[in-house]
Amino acid sequence: MTDAKRAAVAAADWGTTRLRVWLLDAAGGVIAERRSDEGLLAAQPDRFEAILERQLAEMGAPVSLPVVICGMAGSRQGWVEAPYITVPASLGEIFGAAARVPATARDIRIVPGLAQRDADRPDVMRGEETQLAGALARLGAGRHLACMPGTHSKWVELADGAVAGFQTFMTGELFSVLSAQSILRHSVDAEAKVDAASPLFARWCENAVASPAPLETSLFRIRAATLLQGLEGADAAAALSGLLIGAEIVAARARFAVESGPVVLIASGAMRDLYAEALGLAGFAATIIDADEAVRGGLAEAARHMGMTGDAA
Amino acid sequence: MTDAKRAAVAAADWGTTRLRVWLLDAAGGVIAERRSDEGLLAAQPDRFEAILERQLAEMGAPVSLPVVICGMAGSRQGWVEAPYITVPASLGEIFGAAARVPATARDIRIVPGLAQRDADRPDVMRGEETQLAGALARLGAGRHLACMPGTHSKWVELADGAVAGFQTFMTGELFSVLSAQSILRHSVDAEAKVDAASPLFARWCENAVASPAPLETSLFRIRAATLLQGLEGADAAAALSGLLIGAEIVAARARFAVESGPVVLIASGAMRDLYAEALGLAGFAATIIDADEAVRGGLAEAARHMGMTGDAA
Repeated sequence: MTDAKRAAVAAADWGTTRLRVWLLDAAGGVIAERRSDEGLLAAQPDRFEAILERQLAEMGAPVSLPVVICGMAGSRQGWVEAPYITVPASLGEIFGAAARVPATARDIRIVPGLAQRDADRPDVMRGEETQLAGALARLGAGRHLACMPGTHSKWVELADGAVAGFQTFMTGELFSVLSAQSILRHSVDAEAKVDAASPLFARWCENAVASPAPLETSLFRIRAATLLQGLEGADAAAALSGLLIGAEIVAARARFAVESGPVVLIASGAMRDLYAEALGLAGFAATIIDADEAVRGGLAEAARHMGMTGDAA
Repeated sequence: MTDAKRAAVAAADWGTTRLRVWLLDAAGGVIAERRSDEGLLAAQPDRFEAILERQLAEMGAPVSLPVVICGMAGSRQGWVEAPYITVPASLGEIFGAAARVPATARDIRIVPGLAQRDADRPDVMRGEETQLAGALARLGAGRHLACMPGTHSKWVELADGAVAGFQTFMTGELFSVLSAQSILRHSVDAEAKVDAASPLFARWCENAVASPAPLETSLFRIRAATLLQGLEGADAAAALSGLLIGAEIVAARARFAVESGPVVLIASGAMRDLYAEALGLAGFAATIIDADEAVRGGLAEAARHMGMTGDAA
């Protein structure tokens, strides 16, 4: 508890299904961390402040400690809406538009999400912009292509410290919905942990990359391979994962007009391993940045930028 | 009931969720029809004969009337397995491989499904082969491209009275699973009837055809359009339907190497109207064959071919 007195700011990543809170020192170092499943769904409509205060109290945070938040807490269904900033957008523009939560004892601010208001490819992100800020602190200026796997994977073009454009891929959600709810549930063991070293993952991923086919038809090949070739269970889960991630990479390649070369992979855990394997199979050289470190770094960056740590950028 | 004495054969389309039975005269004309929700799921594992006999009794069918069946009743989980016939396959090969149900008083036969045992595009159908037989009786020889919308749409290449190759698209199932279970459920009214005259259906379909994009990314545009442009409810359902059907047509165009021209659309009801509109938007000229008539015609053709009507082909 005594360490908490060193805290310069509290930082929270508040998503749809989970909440993570950290106490950070002036250099962005972690003093304490709490994880909870009190995401947006549990906090709606008016429990945001109570939940946050309880988490902070558990960590012994001083009552005047400022808090910076990213994620769905800033959506219209969240605590206070932090309206989308239109890309291209620099970090300064993003952090400068943070929403201040009114009528709280502390200084609490929420980082806005990003919108791509292109009529042909409307897109949104909320939370990933903060991970990108953390990654940029390590990557520096220049052009970078980032891959951020997840329920809704984002591929992002970074140029000179700004977010130039991005594209969402529903890869993770397609895996979970199709493996549990569609005819593929008879093939796929939806509970199986897919291992990046699985030969089935590699084979279906390589095939998706080498012979691209639209998902609406390639997905049914999992079913047909069950009936005709005995593909099932954990092997079918690995095949479906390889197929979907391979198809995502092919689509991102077309969108960002790159055939190979470096990609910044911002990910943690099993997703990091699967995407690192898949990007390698597709001829990309992945530089890995841990997603948890990136979001903490980005929140610290946001707090500094907004002068919340007494150490303004 | 007296009409039932004229019946030459009983015909059944026995799918996963529904059963339809007809009494047909020697010319394939319908004498009586029954529809039931006693599909494969209700009939497993040993109620097939009891369900069929009750339906036949309700129609007054003579006890010696032979029965020809197509659909999932012939799958491994069905009544008696009628193993897949490998394409290319002629109607004679398909009907010649029908499975006879053993130890029944009547002559009962089940038409097999088709398998495409191509390592790169394994695929299966069961039930549609019989619709195709019915359609071919009207189309005659030559090359035809058929589009058969459904939960799992099939596009089929017919050449000189045989099934040359085919491809499945999970279009209908993607619509139902994504609109009810994914993040798109917040945008789409999954219960809305999509009207082929909806401007949203046309706009999203045209866009999918004119600017093809992979589904894993274009699907998320529905979500983004809700957040950024207010797309929701029945309009979002029409948009999702247009997007998915447009993407199916683009993918089928690539698979069968056709840009435009004639397509045989084998469909009924709302699906017929939506696909007719979409095919028109994509530059195809659709010849419509009613799917219900096609399956009855195909079953009559199968019965004739197998000599079940005393009038062998």
